[in-house]
Amino acid sequence: MGESMNDLEALDARHVVHPWADLSVLGKQQPLVVSRAHGVEIVDSHGRSYLDAIGGMWCVTVGYGRQEIIDAVRDQAARMPYFTPFGDVANEPAVRLAGLLAGLAPGDLNRVHFTTGGSTAVESAVRTAQFYWASVGRPDKFHVLSRVDAYHGSTYLAASLSGKAADRTRFHYESGWVHHLDSPGHDPDTSDVPADRRLDELLDGMTAAIDEIGPENIACFVAEPILASGGVLIPPPGYHAATRELCRRHDILYVSDETVTGFGRLGHFFASEPHFGIVPDLLVTAKGLTSGYQPLGAVLIADPIAETLAETADPAKPVFSNGFTYSGHPVACAAAIANIEVMRREDICGHVRDVGPYFVERLRALRSSPIVYAVRGDHLMACVECQVPGETGPTPRNMALAGRVDAYCERAGLLVRPYENLCIMSPPLVVTRAEIDRMVDIVAGALAAAQADLDAGRIG
Amino acid sequence: MGESMNDLEALDARHVVHPWADLSVLGKQQPLVVSRAHGVEIVDSHGRSYLDAIGGMWCVTVGYGRQEIIDAVRDQAARMPYFTPFGDVANEPAVRLAGLLAGLAPGDLNRVHFTTGGSTAVESAVRTAQFYWASVGRPDKFHVLSRVDAYHGSTYLAASLSGKAADRTRFHYESGWVHHLDSPGHDPDTSDVPADRRLDELLDGMTAAIDEIGPENIACFVAEPILASGGVLIPPPGYHAATRELCRRHDILYVSDETVTGFGRLGHFFASEPHFGIVPDLLVTAKGLTSGYQPLGAVLIADPIAETLAETADPAKPVFSNGFTYSGHPVACAAAIANIEVMRREDICGHVRDVGPYFVERLRALRSSPIVYAVRGDHLMACVECQVPGETGPTPRNMALAGRVDAYCERAGLLVRPYENLCIMSPPLVVTRAEIDRMVDIVAGALAAAQADLDAGRIG
Repeated sequence: MGESMNDLEALDARHVVHPWADLSVLGKQQPLVVSRAHGVEIVDSHGRSYLDAIGGMWCVTVGYGRQEIIDAVRDQAARMPYFTPFGDVANEPAVRLAGLLAGLAPGDLNRVHFTTGGSTAVESAVRTAQFYWASVGRPDKFHVLSRVDAYHGSTYLAASLSGKAADRTRFHYESGWVHHLDSPGHDPDTSDVPADRRLDELLDGMTAAIDEIGPENIACFVAEPILASGGVLIPPPGYHAATRELCRRHDILYVSDETVTGFGRLGHFFASEPHFGIVPDLLVTAKGLTSGYQPLGAVLIADPIAETLAETADPAKPVFSNGFTYSGHPVACAAAIANIEVMRREDICGHVRDVGPYFVERLRALRSSPIVYAVRGDHLMACVECQVPGETGPTPRNMALAGRVDAYCERAGLLVRPYENLCIMSPPLVVTRAEIDRMVDIVAGALAAAQADLDAGRIG
Repeated sequence: MGESMNDLEALDARHVVHPWADLSVLGKQQPLVVSRAHGVEIVDSHGRSYLDAIGGMWCVTVGYGRQEIIDAVRDQAARMPYFTPFGDVANEPAVRLAGLLAGLAPGDLNRVHFTTGGSTAVESAVRTAQFYWASVGRPDKFHVLSRVDAYHGSTYLAASLSGKAADRTRFHYESGWVHHLDSPGHDPDTSDVPADRRLDELLDGMTAAIDEIGPENIACFVAEPILASGGVLIPPPGYHAATRELCRRHDILYVSDETVTGFGRLGHFFASEPHFGIVPDLLVTAKGLTSGYQPLGAVLIADPIAETLAETADPAKPVFSNGFTYSGHPVACAAAIANIEVMRREDICGHVRDVGPYFVERLRALRSSPIVYAVRGDHLMACVECQVPGETGPTPRNMALAGRVDAYCERAGLLVRPYENLCIMSPPLVVTRAEIDRMVDIVAGALAAAQADLDAGRIG
């Protein structure tokens, strides 16, 4: 620890290519080096404290510094940090966690295939769907339906499933068998179209796509219940049940990507059934699963699918050739078990159902600001969409304006997640009403300061 | 911990789909539940101890129970278990580790892009190569060369790059732009072809493939220096330098997948330069990086590539839209730093250079067994290939024979990695000569017992 903090910043600039790095300033950027964290606060390398309004990155649910999870991680690392999970070898924390997840998951989602995070879980879910159809003699049924504005990760397939225009860069993407339906978000505050009409349009669009591709070619539909980093886009009421039914009717497996919505963010361990009224065929979880303390993801698989895989196993090649060295890592699984214990004991889902509506209500009051186009949210996931009055969407000026809001928040000790012209917020689930007040007050102040800059001609 | 161990086994059978599960026995298999570990030994849930001859799964290098790594994991989990690594945000352990890796890596591989393991690092490396060519105005240059018998992971792209016939199951694979060259292994003990002729054949084949696909369409060549889980296949002398030169001549980026060969297994932190005489453009590392204590992977990127990415950044979309929530996870990076400290202080690479040849020499003596077709190895990665005399390859009988050898090893307290008709061994790097003797003696006994079964008509 001999070097000064400037050395750390220089080391980062010299040696790291960050996820989602801005390449135009590679090597020249002064990074924000974060060093310590406690509760809902982060401290940077210069000793400045910030309220963490993004929950690490949607994932830190029970807050930082939880002794129980720290002890679980330490104890498991000491007892047995690793051993292969392949084939017939199991480690105790992974087995226990699988049992817990099966108990928490809706319906007959009782089989767990562990991965290392969300991208690898999405990959595994989609690949499982393709394997399933090939197993029942339908190998051509491998196409996948996703949606514009979705985010499912950044491996080749997960990135191809993602549908955020801003994320489509110079990488290569699959376009032959990955199809994007329309963005399903509907905001009654800003839309000219009533919710029921929008729902009809979305279902008509999905039906037309299925007809065009041919249901006999489609393995699965992959969907976040609420499109998270795409901008907290909430489909109109009835959308989830209706798309679930469309999939059932056409023998298309329904993959719910609950990477963000799972583990309490909407007030339930899994939102699919209690919040959206559906039971998917495959369910992806990650992030909040360990409260971010450890890298882990999982696919939950419905019993009938697993049973079919077993019954149709190829005698010459019965192996399910998917999985990772670190699938069900013992230390990560121990962290997840401790996290679930904390969540249950403190009834964190109940707390979210209590404070979540307050968070959204307080944020929605910000719509009175002339530079706020929309506020969208559901429990503890929300975003504020900024705009220069009269100029909608992620235009350069709107992005500069939102960036200014983010900067004022950071200066006032609040970290929000900037994305295009949005300020995305997903605080730790343990956030109190008083902390919500502090967060929203800071955002309100940042909006006022950015508006003053705009009025004074200091933006764009 | 109230339930009996039988309950754990039942829980696993009911709820887990393991990586590389045998689907024909899904739900019916009695798993090996592992519980504790120390040094080079694993203890199962019934209290039975095993020498771990597979190093977790190529990854546990400094052995189990290392207090320094356990403490590092605990301390970082307490200090700050997580915060987003995206964009301009850095955490201290990731920054420090990036600096260390740049110092350990050969040539100008000074830029680090973290991931969560090997598959995601391979994905990121290949995608970076594709991004690079698109950045310099060559978007059609996205095809990838791999090899038969390669293993690069199990995401869609990584699985498509892999070339092990046994792993090609009912999943879907990319075949349009992923191309497999011939398996490059050459075993002078069993081959009719001299090494220099085999080298010529391999290079001719690679040249022909490049000509056929067109170098203007090929982004990169991805290669394990030694094909690890494909069966410890060692290319003929001169292969690495010659393929490196072929790539340079055709503007094809060279991606070395050192997931297995890195971090000491061949006696060096990275084997590419000291062992094989090449400096790749991109280098993949994982597994031994944390000694398996935490999930982590990384791509090392050569400076000229990173500089080009910066210089050619798209002003409208300068973002490098790749990376994972858990890229450079602080706890995982802290484990890697502690692991590197242990490796340096104890000169573990030097130890491997000392005991590695002894391990291979002792194993090679097993070739006197009539049921051993071949023994291949380099330092602490090796395999014994079994066969019913006169019957070569992964035939059902040979696989049953090797399975019997594995089972006898396990009964005698040694875990080796079964794959087709191979027993693969990759012990922790701290293994002593005495432990090597115990391991090889057990394998010798298992071979004798399996041979007796064969002679008595008890196999196949």
